[in-house]
Amino acid sequence: MKYEELKNITDSVRHGDKAAMTLAWKRLDSLAKPPRSLGVLEETAAKLAGVTGEVKNRIERRRIIVMAADNGVTDEGVSSAPRSVTLTQTKNILHGITGVCALAKAFNAEVEVVDVGIDGDVSDPSIINRKLMRGTDNIRKTAAMSRQTAIDAIAVGIERAKQAKADGMDAIGTGEMGIGNTTTSSAVLAALTGLSAEDITGRGAGMTDSAYENKKRIIREALAVNKPDAGDVIDVLAKVGGLDIAAMTGLFIGAAAERMPVVVDGFISIVAALSAARLCPAAVDYMFLSHASYEIGYNAAAEALGLKPFMLLEMRLGEGSGCPMGFMIMDAACAVISDIATFAEASISDEYLDAISEGDCFSVDK
Amino acid sequence: MKYEELKNITDSVRHGDKAAMTLAWKRLDSLAKPPRSLGVLEETAAKLAGVTGEVKNRIERRRIIVMAADNGVTDEGVSSAPRSVTLTQTKNILHGITGVCALAKAFNAEVEVVDVGIDGDVSDPSIINRKLMRGTDNIRKTAAMSRQTAIDAIAVGIERAKQAKADGMDAIGTGEMGIGNTTTSSAVLAALTGLSAEDITGRGAGMTDSAYENKKRIIREALAVNKPDAGDVIDVLAKVGGLDIAAMTGLFIGAAAERMPVVVDGFISIVAALSAARLCPAAVDYMFLSHASYEIGYNAAAEALGLKPFMLLEMRLGEGSGCPMGFMIMDAACAVISDIATFAEASISDEYLDAISEGDCFSVDK
Repeated sequence: MKYEELKNITDSVRHGDKAAMTLAWKRLDSLAKPPRSLGVLEETAAKLAGVTGEVKNRIERRRIIVMAADNGVTDEGVSSAPRSVTLTQTKNILHGITGVCALAKAFNAEVEVVDVGIDGDVSDPSIINRKLMRGTDNIRKTAAMSRQTAIDAIAVGIERAKQAKADGMDAIGTGEMGIGNTTTSSAVLAALTGLSAEDITGRGAGMTDSAYENKKRIIREALAVNKPDAGDVIDVLAKVGGLDIAAMTGLFIGAAAERMPVVVDGFISIVAALSAARLCPAAVDYMFLSHASYEIGYNAAAEALGLKPFMLLEMRLGEGSGCPMGFMIMDAACAVISDIATFAEASISDEYLDAISEGDCFSVDK
Repeated sequence: MKYEELKNITDSVRHGDKAAMTLAWKRLDSLAKPPRSLGVLEETAAKLAGVTGEVKNRIERRRIIVMAADNGVTDEGVSSAPRSVTLTQTKNILHGITGVCALAKAFNAEVEVVDVGIDGDVSDPSIINRKLMRGTDNIRKTAAMSRQTAIDAIAVGIERAKQAKADGMDAIGTGEMGIGNTTTSSAVLAALTGLSAEDITGRGAGMTDSAYENKKRIIREALAVNKPDAGDVIDVLAKVGGLDIAAMTGLFIGAAAERMPVVVDGFISIVAALSAARLCPAAVDYMFLSHASYEIGYNAAAEALGLKPFMLLEMRLGEGSGCPMGFMIMDAACAVISDIATFAEASISDEYLDAISEGDCFSVDK
């Protein structure tokens, strides 16, 4: 994809439909309950109206798209899992036996796996082969990939979002598999926000002090060597990012271009969401945050996006494993706006309507 | 019910099955993912094993039990909704058109409504009629009910939990409908914890400054007039509580006695859960917190219970409306422990197993 073509797509994305959101809030406020007492479920229903242009929605068909790629920075020992685990776990996702598979099955979602740069071959015909490199280069020494490759990876994400829409999906979720990708994500987040590696790099479960110090040092060095331009997201992704993050960035842009809701999973996913928002600010209107990752950088990215997660599940698995629960909260929001009776239907008296118009009813708050 | 009979039931409740929980953790740690990387979902799966004694569970049949009752303290203007809304909304729940109904339907749960003290008559034959009073007395002036009535209300909850088990339910949720019950709940919470009305009384949406000050004053006066004994939960419930809170307290005790998981909804529900825990500390092992209510007292009660909610949805509707999403997180936990492959099944190498035994893998944390 040429840069101009990408620019045309990001420029084409419109903000959520304000007229539909206004109608949604009008309906929500007419339902037989204290105004705004369903909190985030109401906000989500209104946001979904902005996405689709319809007041009532159903998120019946949903697909989690997993971007799999290797990262050259694993040469620096930032992860004690060997690089080969990217290939093994990608195969396991295709076989339906990993965390995201179990949760997707429980909540009625499909899982699609895209090879955007695994250092190895997957023979399973169900994989979407869009391999751009056999793993990126080592960001401590050089750029992860060329600027054109970063654009091509974004294009892969846009293409898969478009395909999901063409296949009749009502929503997509974003996932990844790539050993080393919390390191690249931290580097991208630091470059985009100006925060230090110290502030946004997690130590994970049981990482030794020395391994943690090493991880932060590698991130600092990657930023010093590559000098990514904070104002140029493609430069940041190419220099200190990864093929997985770039392809996920494309998923967020593609979902917004297709007016389709898209669920953010954990840390890598939210860094890609922030990258997409910097390329295309209106894309934020299409994003829904599933759960607050246990990774400390997550909150900084959520704050930069101006969004809040639905859940607090202390998860740090990745793979898109938080998306199924995110879809479920969206189902709840759809049920609220579609299935609760209005005050008129519920035969609630004028006296009560006067009371609730003051915003104090049903003993106020529960 | 005689007090001795209640005492026998609370004494019979055993803590969660430690052997089953140990087996559950053994399985969870053998699954092809970084150890503990599914956070709260893993903790929930292990807790469920403690509840049922089985490692793998399914929460297929679930019932939300809504305790409906009026509160004499509404005479003090603590809620601007008229008392008659308790009756109207109870009928609306029976008609399937309120918030809890919409969400229960979306997540495959039944709703049962119990009249434990509505000031009015419900002719709908689907209501469970266990009316003990036509609303309690006004706690600013006198005790809400007699000690024996409080025990009888607890007994209603225990009976309904037992019936749910007999009807084949795998889990129950707790809900309520009763104008004025955030006031009584705040009074009970203050009495049980020693916290001040100031610390735990919410102002709700749009409550005026004067209405808020009035609510706190009424709670302080109710405590001063009735002098509930913090060490005697039944005294607290009888003097400053309500029939709904007492009956919900019984639901938590009954669920634990039947070794059935029970979901806590919002503020009134968690005050009842804390009351149950004070009568029967082992009951905490059967409780699952759905969402953090927007009401400020919620966090104090959760802390006293030593439990954390799954979700942050800024809800304050009550009716048990948070329970359906709580069941869904339990479904997710069941999927995790049942459906993810073990390392052996996932063909992950010894090298990788060595790595994850150090707790650092899949690039550590997402």
